[in-house]
Amino acid sequence: MRKIIANWSVLILAIISTTSYAQQNNGEQVLFTTSISEDATPAVLARIMTADKNPISEIKFEKGTYHFYPDKAYERFTRISNHDDVMAKMALPLIGFKNLVIDGQGSTFIYHGRMIPFLIEGSENITIQNVTVDWAMSFHSEGTIVANDEKNNTFDIHFSDEYPYEIRNEQLIFLKEYYEHDLGQSILYDPERKAIAFNTEAYTSITTIRNSKVQHNFDKIEYKYKVDPRSKVEKVRGKENNLRVEELKPGTLRIYNHKKKLPPVGMIMVCKGDQSLNRLAPAFRVTGTDSFNINNVTVHHAGGMGLIAENSSDLILDGFHVKPSNGRMVSTSADATHFVGCRGKVVLKNCTFNNQLDDATNVHGTYQEIIDILGEKSIGVRIGHAQQQGFTIGKVNDTIGLVRLADSFFAYSHLTLKNIKEINGRYQIITFKEPLPENLKVGDLIENLEAYPELLVQNCDISRNRARGLLISNPKKTLIENNFFSTEMEAILVPVESSHWFESGNAANLTIRNNTFQDNQHSGHNRGVIRFVTDDDNNNIAFKNIQIIDNVFNQFDNMILEISNVDGLVFEGNKITNSGTFPMLYPENPAIRVKASKDVVFKKNEYKGKAENILEKDDSMPKLKFR
Amino acid sequence: MRKIIANWSVLILAIISTTSYAQQNNGEQVLFTTSISEDATPAVLARIMTADKNPISEIKFEKGTYHFYPDKAYERFTRISNHDDVMAKMALPLIGFKNLVIDGQGSTFIYHGRMIPFLIEGSENITIQNVTVDWAMSFHSEGTIVANDEKNNTFDIHFSDEYPYEIRNEQLIFLKEYYEHDLGQSILYDPERKAIAFNTEAYTSITTIRNSKVQHNFDKIEYKYKVDPRSKVEKVRGKENNLRVEELKPGTLRIYNHKKKLPPVGMIMVCKGDQSLNRLAPAFRVTGTDSFNINNVTVHHAGGMGLIAENSSDLILDGFHVKPSNGRMVSTSADATHFVGCRGKVVLKNCTFNNQLDDATNVHGTYQEIIDILGEKSIGVRIGHAQQQGFTIGKVNDTIGLVRLADSFFAYSHLTLKNIKEINGRYQIITFKEPLPENLKVGDLIENLEAYPELLVQNCDISRNRARGLLISNPKKTLIENNFFSTEMEAILVPVESSHWFESGNAANLTIRNNTFQDNQHSGHNRGVIRFVTDDDNNNIAFKNIQIIDNVFNQFDNMILEISNVDGLVFEGNKITNSGTFPMLYPENPAIRVKASKDVVFKKNEYKGKAENILEKDDSMPKLKFR
Repeated sequence: MRKIIANWSVLILAIISTTSYAQQNNGEQVLFTTSISEDATPAVLARIMTADKNPISEIKFEKGTYHFYPDKAYERFTRISNHDDVMAKMALPLIGFKNLVIDGQGSTFIYHGRMIPFLIEGSENITIQNVTVDWAMSFHSEGTIVANDEKNNTFDIHFSDEYPYEIRNEQLIFLKEYYEHDLGQSILYDPERKAIAFNTEAYTSITTIRNSKVQHNFDKIEYKYKVDPRSKVEKVRGKENNLRVEELKPGTLRIYNHKKKLPPVGMIMVCKGDQSLNRLAPAFRVTGTDSFNINNVTVHHAGGMGLIAENSSDLILDGFHVKPSNGRMVSTSADATHFVGCRGKVVLKNCTFNNQLDDATNVHGTYQEIIDILGEKSIGVRIGHAQQQGFTIGKVNDTIGLVRLADSFFAYSHLTLKNIKEINGRYQIITFKEPLPENLKVGDLIENLEAYPELLVQNCDISRNRARGLLISNPKKTLIENNFFSTEMEAILVPVESSHWFESGNAANLTIRNNTFQDNQHSGHNRGVIRFVTDDDNNNIAFKNIQIIDNVFNQFDNMILEISNVDGLVFEGNKITNSGTFPMLYPENPAIRVKASKDVVFKKNEYKGKAENILEKDDSMPKLKFR
Repeated sequence: MRKIIANWSVLILAIISTTSYAQQNNGEQVLFTTSISEDATPAVLARIMTADKNPISEIKFEKGTYHFYPDKAYERFTRISNHDDVMAKMALPLIGFKNLVIDGQGSTFIYHGRMIPFLIEGSENITIQNVTVDWAMSFHSEGTIVANDEKNNTFDIHFSDEYPYEIRNEQLIFLKEYYEHDLGQSILYDPERKAIAFNTEAYTSITTIRNSKVQHNFDKIEYKYKVDPRSKVEKVRGKENNLRVEELKPGTLRIYNHKKKLPPVGMIMVCKGDQSLNRLAPAFRVTGTDSFNINNVTVHHAGGMGLIAENSSDLILDGFHVKPSNGRMVSTSADATHFVGCRGKVVLKNCTFNNQLDDATNVHGTYQEIIDILGEKSIGVRIGHAQQQGFTIGKVNDTIGLVRLADSFFAYSHLTLKNIKEINGRYQIITFKEPLPENLKVGDLIENLEAYPELLVQNCDISRNRARGLLISNPKKTLIENNFFSTEMEAILVPVESSHWFESGNAANLTIRNNTFQDNQHSGHNRGVIRFVTDDDNNNIAFKNIQIIDNVFNQFDNMILEISNVDGLVFEGNKITNSGTFPMLYPENPAIRVKASKDVVFKKNEYKGKAENILEKDDSMPKLKFR
């Protein structure tokens, strides 16, 4: 009798287990072999497009190299935050999928032209693993400075056969598959360090644009509404090309009219074209998705970010490696990762964020400007930045804060979201469950107070890239530990900013511990390694409950930490040395600067740097001492 | 008793009548007053967007002038045949409407920037009446030639305050609301005749583009699939700006490097920017709509066509007047009307098609190229022209012809359409109900054999415009009667063409009667007033059953009629004179040329022209005589 009972329980367990397995793997396990490798797009897409009738639980690829062309790819007009609006072309449009694993089994996917390798929208529990993403031709170009001539103010640059080009009316255009770019945004890399060149700000960006001289009756165009001077139409007005390019011999070009210092011989200049055109092909685009996992994925390149996630929750990136291939200096042409309006958990662990042309990550929400009061419960909002067009600020029942930054960095009131009508990319009508407060004014901002994540950045190598390491605008809990930072600008930037990018979120409950900071901020900016800053120049508190503990700062220059508008910061157990790697750029600087803050505590730190004055402070904390 | 019965029948009639009225007018009669005239967009759009819950039968506007701005307009990515793909901005997105009348009651609607005034999709029985459409700033620019200098090969041009501009790197850019254009496509207008200048081809287009001189490794870019050399990315390769522009004084500019004859002083040069960028804002876009009526509508301008209709049926335009305002030379910047894949009846009566920069109408279908055989019943097709991207060739059960133009202009087989999957703008997967025939080959074309209309063009004034009057590729019945034609190129062009525009349809059952043709083809082309022509140089029959009867040709030059690849044409009762309006350009020409045709009959015509040899013919009809 006992035996029978035991058998029963085994049976029940077996059934439960099977049921659970079936729920998670309700669909076919698809295997693609290298027979499709010449253009994997049509076969992969054909299977994806029938998944509604014939579900898939897993897609595996026989280990190999697969090419993906756009010609027979699925196409859809797509707005992507912090990217340009694009006609996205995809072999893997994962829209409305649930419980799917894609396993490259060590394969490499090579993309051709303007494609988005992984687009995941409105999905749930998606895992991508064991795959390497690269492009046949990069969206940027890299050339070596081979000569410069102070007398004639020219420099010569050589491009390898990897970078076809032509000259149109003295302007250099790089020719790609289905794409091209001009010099546009540029920066120097040091090929010995395979990192951004020391003091590159003295040399770059190269000055591609100047004011035009003849303009007639432009002032007679009267716009009725506010116009974004950075929009594609407006930004070119009153501007013209400044540089003149001449081919000396095939592959070698002379550049005239540069206005900064001439780039040193031997440096590598990377250029990626105009800012409003060059973010068009991120490797991963995730939006409206709950539970997204990346395991052991390498992104060698993308024409945009490695991963851009919007309005998603629980994103776990374990072993997401952004680093260049083929001897290139550059990996992705924008941020390695970027999270907008995400919630739940965001985890970046055991990752590599190397050589990308923008931040390792940027975590923030969005401000939208109230421009119309349309009724008792409705407003019309304007989306401020061209690369946020169409962004949905939240979902039903989210708590939306009303913000007037001139008065406070925190919301003065809040409402419950009922409905968003997208009228156009720049304009939405938002209705709330409650009446608008009487003090709401046109010009105020809205911010989603819920759409921020718990953030963990752990055991990551963040180095050799342009711009920041981490850009944190996250009022929820953030833990940054055991990482290595060596970045061109701030290792960690904590801003409140509203007037340019419209990226919301004032950091709080932020812990930075056990990290190593090696020679950050080496491109020439007079700024700290970790920096708290607000756009609005006032003494209001923006940041709360910050801990910076047990880190090592091995920095060539003085400035380590800039604290501003902070309430509650502990700086404890940190070791600061001078690395001697580069000449000091700002030897007059202190190690730490404190402004408009309160409850800041220094203890048990070790300072072996070169600053004459370790701590510089304003009137906000007159008795503060570095210890 | 009789009275009661009589009353009953009256009552029944009344009920029927009311029911019928209710069906046709099932919804609110909306009236907008001039209180919304400063920007009518938000109010009109708000009402349209609630029409699903609160239906509308009629929208009336109090007579007045209404401005429509794009800032708060509904926006959607939209592909429009023979236009560029656009982010369409609309105050009146009529999508899925039924039985709706929009009555301007004599109002004028003024649009600002890139908008589509009337977008009608998937609708039924829609009428637009009594409204005038115009734009605050035109999408083209007009300047007067004020000097030319043969010695230095320059000409000077003056632009009024209506046309703000700037010069960027010696290139002239016209600045508009939310838009700009360069010189691009240009042509001369004669201000005295308010029509295209005589012999303008000798002077225009002005030569804005030349080959660039430096190109390196472009041949190393290997495309796997066919690329459209006219696509936006490809067309600029190997090209650069040719002209140099200098401001002499505000409003007056000197143009260097023009390669044709210098434009004569006093002529007006109109320019509309690059061909792949300048068709973005048609006044009416109609697609997938059954029964569409326009009554008494004037279109003074549009950045594209006056009306572009696709895949619609029964379109009746009665009193559709395309003509310029404000002393401008130009009305719409492309065709006045254009019909692609339309069926049922298409009627243009009592219309004015003046001063537009392309044809008065163009009626055709679409060829798509078979590039993949994907199974027993499925093919992959490529859309050949960038401005046909996303075009849907037909609906379920349509008869689709298989065409191999090298062999015949007529389909060699046909299949029944089952399903179309749009993969991307250029590529679709089409499935048929029957298996593909064995002789189907990659490279063959498909054509919808049903999607052509019965066409009537009656009592229209077609004059003062660039390009053709009517471009007819319609194998169904076409009647063209009682019209006045005075156009820059052919009054009536009847083509089969496949290699550039991919516009299908070989004309048949075409009657042209009682029209007056006055000085057409005056821009310099050596072509006839009415012209039948095929792209493919062979003797196959393309056109059948043509009647050209009782027309008056009052033409300054000799060539009246070019017949090629025709089976069955009667040319009867026509009167041909020489107008003497302009000098003859091609005095050596005959009046009529016949090639590769059969069953052509001339009778009872009157010839008072100047051709020494009235009829020129090849071996196809050796005994043919003009009578």
